[in-house]
Amino acid sequence: MATPRKLEVVNPVPADIDIAQSVDPLPIAAIAQDLGLSAAEFQLYGPCKAKVLLSVRDRLKGAPDGFYVVVGGITPTPLGEGKSTTTVGLGQALGAHLGRKVVTCLRQPSQGPTFGIKGGAAGGGYSQVIPMEEFNLHLTGDIHAITAANNLLAAAIDARIFHEATQSDKALFNRLCPANFYGKRAFAKVMLGRLKRVGIEKTDPNQLTPEEVKKFARLDIDPETITWRRVMDVNDRFLRKVTIGQGSEEKGMTRETGFDISVASEIMAVLALTTSLADMRERLGKMVIGSSRAGDPVTADDLGLGGALTVLMKDAIHPTLMQTLEGTPVFVHAGPFANIAHGNSSIVADQIALKLVGSEGFVVTEAGFGADIGTEKFFNIKCRYSGLTPQCAIIVATVRALKMHGGGPEVVAGKPLDLAYKSENVELVRAGCGNLVKHIENTRAYGVNVIVAINMFSTDTEAELGAVKSAALDAGAFDAVVCTHYAHGGEGVELGYAVQRACERHSAPLKFLYPREISIKEKIALIAKSYGADGVEYSPEAEKKIEIYSRQGFSNLPICVAKTQYSFSHQPERKGVPKGFVLPIRDIRASVGAGFIYPLVGTMSTMPGLPTRPCFYDIDLDLATGKVLGLS
Amino acid sequence: MATPRKLEVVNPVPADIDIAQSVDPLPIAAIAQDLGLSAAEFQLYGPCKAKVLLSVRDRLKGAPDGFYVVVGGITPTPLGEGKSTTTVGLGQALGAHLGRKVVTCLRQPSQGPTFGIKGGAAGGGYSQVIPMEEFNLHLTGDIHAITAANNLLAAAIDARIFHEATQSDKALFNRLCPANFYGKRAFAKVMLGRLKRVGIEKTDPNQLTPEEVKKFARLDIDPETITWRRVMDVNDRFLRKVTIGQGSEEKGMTRETGFDISVASEIMAVLALTTSLADMRERLGKMVIGSSRAGDPVTADDLGLGGALTVLMKDAIHPTLMQTLEGTPVFVHAGPFANIAHGNSSIVADQIALKLVGSEGFVVTEAGFGADIGTEKFFNIKCRYSGLTPQCAIIVATVRALKMHGGGPEVVAGKPLDLAYKSENVELVRAGCGNLVKHIENTRAYGVNVIVAINMFSTDTEAELGAVKSAALDAGAFDAVVCTHYAHGGEGVELGYAVQRACERHSAPLKFLYPREISIKEKIALIAKSYGADGVEYSPEAEKKIEIYSRQGFSNLPICVAKTQYSFSHQPERKGVPKGFVLPIRDIRASVGAGFIYPLVGTMSTMPGLPTRPCFYDIDLDLATGKVLGLS
Repeated sequence: MATPRKLEVVNPVPADIDIAQSVDPLPIAAIAQDLGLSAAEFQLYGPCKAKVLLSVRDRLKGAPDGFYVVVGGITPTPLGEGKSTTTVGLGQALGAHLGRKVVTCLRQPSQGPTFGIKGGAAGGGYSQVIPMEEFNLHLTGDIHAITAANNLLAAAIDARIFHEATQSDKALFNRLCPANFYGKRAFAKVMLGRLKRVGIEKTDPNQLTPEEVKKFARLDIDPETITWRRVMDVNDRFLRKVTIGQGSEEKGMTRETGFDISVASEIMAVLALTTSLADMRERLGKMVIGSSRAGDPVTADDLGLGGALTVLMKDAIHPTLMQTLEGTPVFVHAGPFANIAHGNSSIVADQIALKLVGSEGFVVTEAGFGADIGTEKFFNIKCRYSGLTPQCAIIVATVRALKMHGGGPEVVAGKPLDLAYKSENVELVRAGCGNLVKHIENTRAYGVNVIVAINMFSTDTEAELGAVKSAALDAGAFDAVVCTHYAHGGEGVELGYAVQRACERHSAPLKFLYPREISIKEKIALIAKSYGADGVEYSPEAEKKIEIYSRQGFSNLPICVAKTQYSFSHQPERKGVPKGFVLPIRDIRASVGAGFIYPLVGTMSTMPGLPTRPCFYDIDLDLATGKVLGLS
Repeated sequence: MATPRKLEVVNPVPADIDIAQSVDPLPIAAIAQDLGLSAAEFQLYGPCKAKVLLSVRDRLKGAPDGFYVVVGGITPTPLGEGKSTTTVGLGQALGAHLGRKVVTCLRQPSQGPTFGIKGGAAGGGYSQVIPMEEFNLHLTGDIHAITAANNLLAAAIDARIFHEATQSDKALFNRLCPANFYGKRAFAKVMLGRLKRVGIEKTDPNQLTPEEVKKFARLDIDPETITWRRVMDVNDRFLRKVTIGQGSEEKGMTRETGFDISVASEIMAVLALTTSLADMRERLGKMVIGSSRAGDPVTADDLGLGGALTVLMKDAIHPTLMQTLEGTPVFVHAGPFANIAHGNSSIVADQIALKLVGSEGFVVTEAGFGADIGTEKFFNIKCRYSGLTPQCAIIVATVRALKMHGGGPEVVAGKPLDLAYKSENVELVRAGCGNLVKHIENTRAYGVNVIVAINMFSTDTEAELGAVKSAALDAGAFDAVVCTHYAHGGEGVELGYAVQRACERHSAPLKFLYPREISIKEKIALIAKSYGADGVEYSPEAEKKIEIYSRQGFSNLPICVAKTQYSFSHQPERKGVPKGFVLPIRDIRASVGAGFIYPLVGTMSTMPGLPTRPCFYDIDLDLATGKVLGLS
């Protein structure tokens, strides 16, 4: 590694943006070279960001992977327990203090929260990704590409329904396969797939019978079945439910639908789970947008769009290289919603990183929310598709959250913390450790060494921290370490040492919670059991969907449960280790392109709203210096 | 200039994308250095694009400007008459063949047409900007930034109405100005402007009387007056008219609104017309989104958003550097809609370019549509705000379009051309030259030398081309030149020579069509007269708006007429030189931030639709080479 940047740590810790802007980032090209990338293997996007090309992974095909570490957490309070800070701080420790090659892999944040309710995703204090304004805003345009691709598909759906409604089979077909300048007609390449899917073996448009013309040209989409929604990367609550098509030219073909925030798009999940350009082309093409009136799935490729969507996403597939405050490399790539999608950064970023750090190096990757959601999906969905095997899983815990699980007063974002959280109460901590223990047990079952990282606050006492440590070790954690990355950056090296030991001593094989081949209900049952549920209850809607997806051939997909992150159960107020509950499945949906089935436990909002005073009030540009003010 | 790239021209001319991909682009850094940019003055976005920083202009403040050439056209057919091709080809001729420093300035195209109905904006044949897939897709994310900023403002409007409806004055105020950790409260910087606008001179939140609290905190937006719409950079006809707010959490506060394509956003017009970061901050803040119930304009800054919008747009303000097929530099920057906005690329790109080429160099900039629309707005809006003086205006004409103006059969995109357009008919050409003559006369009135560039097709005959030439010269054109940029690239140097002469011999001052200070109606009357109208007719709606805007202090803004590009009149079918018509003004709107009033003549679609077979069917990625297929 090049000389790491030396941090001058101040106490009390200044505001995140002040720390972030107090440091001059290293030229990202220097960091790329340091990682062993040739000039042809990365593309600059300004001085502080670079796209790292997938070709690197292919060049290093035969080379050994580094150690693979995933960072999850206990069931959090609404304030968050410092998972990103720990992830970034661990990277700084390993790379800038322990002399190991390391890449930290993070998700790209949505712009919705950036301008809505405060809460950066770049870490905090002396453990941050910089420049944080680049990280939190457009980055290298990946989310914008997803928005564009998602909405092109949405526009194509309604336009197709409209054109089918107003044209005869023959007119429709003639427009889809027009004669060229010489009077010849041919199917576009994307149409050949549809011909196959509907069982037509001809390739000459002129040879189709009228029945075949109809079969090919009419998607006959049932508007009631459309699951594809439009997206925007903004907190716009008034778009949650809308009626479209009210213009007079649309001839009364109105339809109720809604918008999600862009990171909830299936295309985001595709980006996170894809393994190559060819794989992405296939996944985008087979995304299901709804069904025909006959009950067959209708795909993006049926609409002729798989290729165009791939073109829109061709740059987004390359991870973005940034840096920590201490100049260690960070890959930022993909940021699927952690409840309706799987909440993990991309497979390709992790794969490239593992090759770049080599056999002695480390890749630290973050999984969203608590380990019941993020880590579970990391293993059963992400690792299943990537084929990668982690050696170590970290569970970030705080005394604050454990006190809450032990029966402490409610923790509400934006309201002052109750005194219980600021004064010593070892009993309350001990009472809450059951939550930690269950996360440790669940995570150990995947065959990894589990380390508990106790993200320390200044009000925590030795006795409280000690209680957490013993509980963790008693539950079989490989180690439990008090972390001060927020206050000290990478200088807090204890977690780094523990991770080194945990990885080097790891030998167990990866064990999934469930095999793909069993039925949808069997898979859901196993996941529910891991939550501590006594069983699963399905709504009639969910039952119907399971029947449809099984018939359509999607039952072997992994399961991505959409559930609150605030409890092992479906009820956010049930803290600690809830018992005696039955998991209610309200509905089930399929992200066929991304590659999972997602049961909805309760109602997940897929479009946040703006508060009365959004944080955009404080955001401005210093016109003299060009610096961004007020971001957090 | 560095050694220009040598084109190997083939006949017949291959498809645009095949030509574009047959050439390896030069490293854009080399082109930047060649332009005299230091390493700190440009930022790479991959190997073929770079943002050129505004700071260049400031460094070259005292240096002389180059010659400034605008390219407009006659009233076009729906097929387009090759304005972009001519603009790019002229740049190639001047830079790669005549040894002059040159920058070509173009608009960034919308992705709507790229995936909708064929029609690239990168030029054509051997006169193109490359890589054309980068040019036509995300580029450096400017349009995505506009979409994000536009929609954040839209979300803020509805959220604010919602929060005002559900809170008391006091609760609203307390949320807008919350007490901090120490119990202190303060106005955000952006709020100080609103206090001033509503006539409150206090700066301590605790000092406001209940009346002042109400005045400050309640924007009291009248939903009926909201002119701010959401945008997307896609052809999505079903979003033209929608009802939003139908989710149960929105408590029945539904509202009818609609989406425009992103390039129709006022923020796009702001980007095109701004002259500095400080100016952009001001323009974005003063954009009017509607009125209060009391009739006062409500601005983005009233919603607390001017700063955040500026932060979202801070990278977009820097033009993107690309290259032509022959390696000459191109600035791509801003692409406001040419009918409801002013249809010209950015002021800052032209300003930077003029400094970079220096006193002997040339900047060639394109104005959208026919000279009645694009060139008129170039002079009266763009040059008025930039303070720049062009020496030469080009009017691109084709024999095909002049035949149409002479009475030839209708020309329809996608249908075969009538034989009249492929065989010699000098009389038809002569009969249509009136249209060209009127464009020449109108353009000469600005005090520039006018050159007619006849974009030649293979079916044009000597006699036809000669007829156009004589008509042009008789009408006072400085020169009239047959151009073959499509077939020969920059090797067609005649136009280049003519432009050199026209610029070097220019001396007249710039004359606007109207002064800013006269009334809205007087300005519109002068523009209508330039179309050949006998007068102007206002709808009651338009009359009312003129009264409101005059009262609100916006009457001194320039005028941006929204009118069909297919006729001097408001009726697209009236070709040639329409006479005896009265211009009907259906409605009038104000883009206060961008800085113009726009009367609507007829109905302009601000959201295109997808045809039955959009061109996305042909677009795909060659997975072996990574090349984009099927773009045009």
